[in-house]
Amino acid sequence: MTTQTHEPTLAQKALDHVLDRVEQRLRDHLGRERAQWASALTGEASPVVPIDAVADLVHAGGKRLRPAFCASGFLSAGGDADDPVIVDAAAALELLHAFALIHDDVLDDSPLRRGRPTVHERYAAEHRARGWRGEPRRFGEGVAILAGDLAYVLADTLTADFPPAARELWGELRAEMIIGQFVDIRAAAAASADLPLARWIAVCKSGHYSIHRPLALGAGLAGRPGLAPAFQEYGVALGEAFQLRDDMIDAFGTSASTGKPVGLDLDQNKMTPLIAVAAERDARVRDLVAQCADGDRDTARMRALLAETGVRAEIEAHIDRLVGQARAAIVRAPLGPAWRQVLSDMARRVAYRDR
Amino acid sequence: MTTQTHEPTLAQKALDHVLDRVEQRLRDHLGRERAQWASALTGEASPVVPIDAVADLVHAGGKRLRPAFCASGFLSAGGDADDPVIVDAAAALELLHAFALIHDDVLDDSPLRRGRPTVHERYAAEHRARGWRGEPRRFGEGVAILAGDLAYVLADTLTADFPPAARELWGELRAEMIIGQFVDIRAAAAASADLPLARWIAVCKSGHYSIHRPLALGAGLAGRPGLAPAFQEYGVALGEAFQLRDDMIDAFGTSASTGKPVGLDLDQNKMTPLIAVAAERDARVRDLVAQCADGDRDTARMRALLAETGVRAEIEAHIDRLVGQARAAIVRAPLGPAWRQVLSDMARRVAYRDR
Repeated sequence: MTTQTHEPTLAQKALDHVLDRVEQRLRDHLGRERAQWASALTGEASPVVPIDAVADLVHAGGKRLRPAFCASGFLSAGGDADDPVIVDAAAALELLHAFALIHDDVLDDSPLRRGRPTVHERYAAEHRARGWRGEPRRFGEGVAILAGDLAYVLADTLTADFPPAARELWGELRAEMIIGQFVDIRAAAAASADLPLARWIAVCKSGHYSIHRPLALGAGLAGRPGLAPAFQEYGVALGEAFQLRDDMIDAFGTSASTGKPVGLDLDQNKMTPLIAVAAERDARVRDLVAQCADGDRDTARMRALLAETGVRAEIEAHIDRLVGQARAAIVRAPLGPAWRQVLSDMARRVAYRDR
Repeated sequence: MTTQTHEPTLAQKALDHVLDRVEQRLRDHLGRERAQWASALTGEASPVVPIDAVADLVHAGGKRLRPAFCASGFLSAGGDADDPVIVDAAAALELLHAFALIHDDVLDDSPLRRGRPTVHERYAAEHRARGWRGEPRRFGEGVAILAGDLAYVLADTLTADFPPAARELWGELRAEMIIGQFVDIRAAAAASADLPLARWIAVCKSGHYSIHRPLALGAGLAGRPGLAPAFQEYGVALGEAFQLRDDMIDAFGTSASTGKPVGLDLDQNKMTPLIAVAAERDARVRDLVAQCADGDRDTARMRALLAETGVRAEIEAHIDRLVGQARAAIVRAPLGPAWRQVLSDMARRVAYRDR
């Protein structure tokens, strides 16, 4: 459908230029906050601990997906690559994501993130090692709650120069992410087998939060909010593909390649879009889902079923269709050809990121 | 020192007028958010649960201390009582406080707030009652983390019309509150007997967060940032008195009168300013603190010691001195006499709120 260019285009170079400055902005912003608190209170009390917890996560890598989409939305809409507002917005999205990850890891009791122990694990371990008072788990989770809260503030302070429309979008994006997360943990707790709900959650968390809203925020900051509907179509389709890929990696991938544990969704009996699609197609999966809802769980059997029923291949075909939809939305959008190419390439990287 | 007026002054009436509108604003803002999400996703999934958790806490009462100080800072600086920005700012502070309380109650594992079960307790109980999947504690705390996060977003969206200087102050206030909370839980975990640190925490959490910053934010919004130093002096002194009163209520009060559990600080062996002052004055308190740092704890003995050593009376005298300092700062500030009276009365109510 598209020709791969091996020489980076000017569009790709502009994007890389913005993303390099985003890294610098993140380092400066976190460094300044740390310096301020390090001098406010010295000694054992370490007011910098929550800042370091955020910085460790941010600097440990990550795909920088939301900054990339936000910067692409801005530049493809004609924004100036040297405008500081896009650097601030993209860095704010990455810090907001750090907030979401730190809190999510507590919600899921996940031990590993970006190849390192999660914040709550690390500080529970410190509490245990030092023989401190109280419960190590509560302390570790307390530090993670506060570190997440701080990442949120540090994200927000980067949005000081947003015009009112962008500020409104920033508020919506955050509320939607949190509500999506709640609906997700509630559906998992209730062992919901509600397929449209599983899809709603995927669209909310991956489609809107990770793709559509960052793109729309970028376009809004560049003064072209009219691009939002095309970005929504692209984001919703690609977000579902992204989530399905996530589910596939969780079900069939390895922890070494992802830097986080795999198999958690199956273990927690989550009605992921993968399970939802599989249950639609195969009666044995439906039976196993119903049985899990009654209190049993059988992760190994589910993984085997997903492989042997051919659902795995069907999901791959479904991902292909979704990527096609996302690319079609971009082809129809009033964007220059170089930006169509960039967004088309990004769709491929997001949907096939295990390749 | 001051004459009590029994007829409310015009200043007091203007303050009450703003605070009434703050209640309305909170109801409208939370109601609108709820209506939006109730229609976005219907059925069992209940996206409104985190919003209801915030609304239940906000509408259950509370002293509205931070809105009152913010509105007083604004009006005493000559702000217009009909300006919507002060209503938004005061409501934002109350929602920010809801965020802090919901997360703090998880950090402290507190069962009761404003006379009702805390958010994490309530949803852990629901999880148990419904026989849901996973751990009730993790689910309850997960809902509380997300409800707190949402309160945070809802606070922020009310600050959309803040000018840049007020936005900066809003950022500082939030970071300071979170860092203060971290230093507090870390000092408690390490059973720190560091007296200056205990005072630093009290100044940070009560002096700045509850009093000085709300007043300064109000004055800034009214265009008189020059009042900040007087408000800081008032806030730091009154904040210490406020914290000492809190400690006294925790040590000697009853749960029925406070709507939250008492004795938690002693149980958790917190180096509160009360214990810090007591340890300075009495060797037996010092010994018991040292013994607790070695791993023992003896709440009943500490409570008895605080009473029999005369520390209780000394703390009352210290609170009197702090209130005097706070009032003196206000008397020296370039404020009208009616506002000096209001702030003087507020100092009394804050420091002697058990009367």
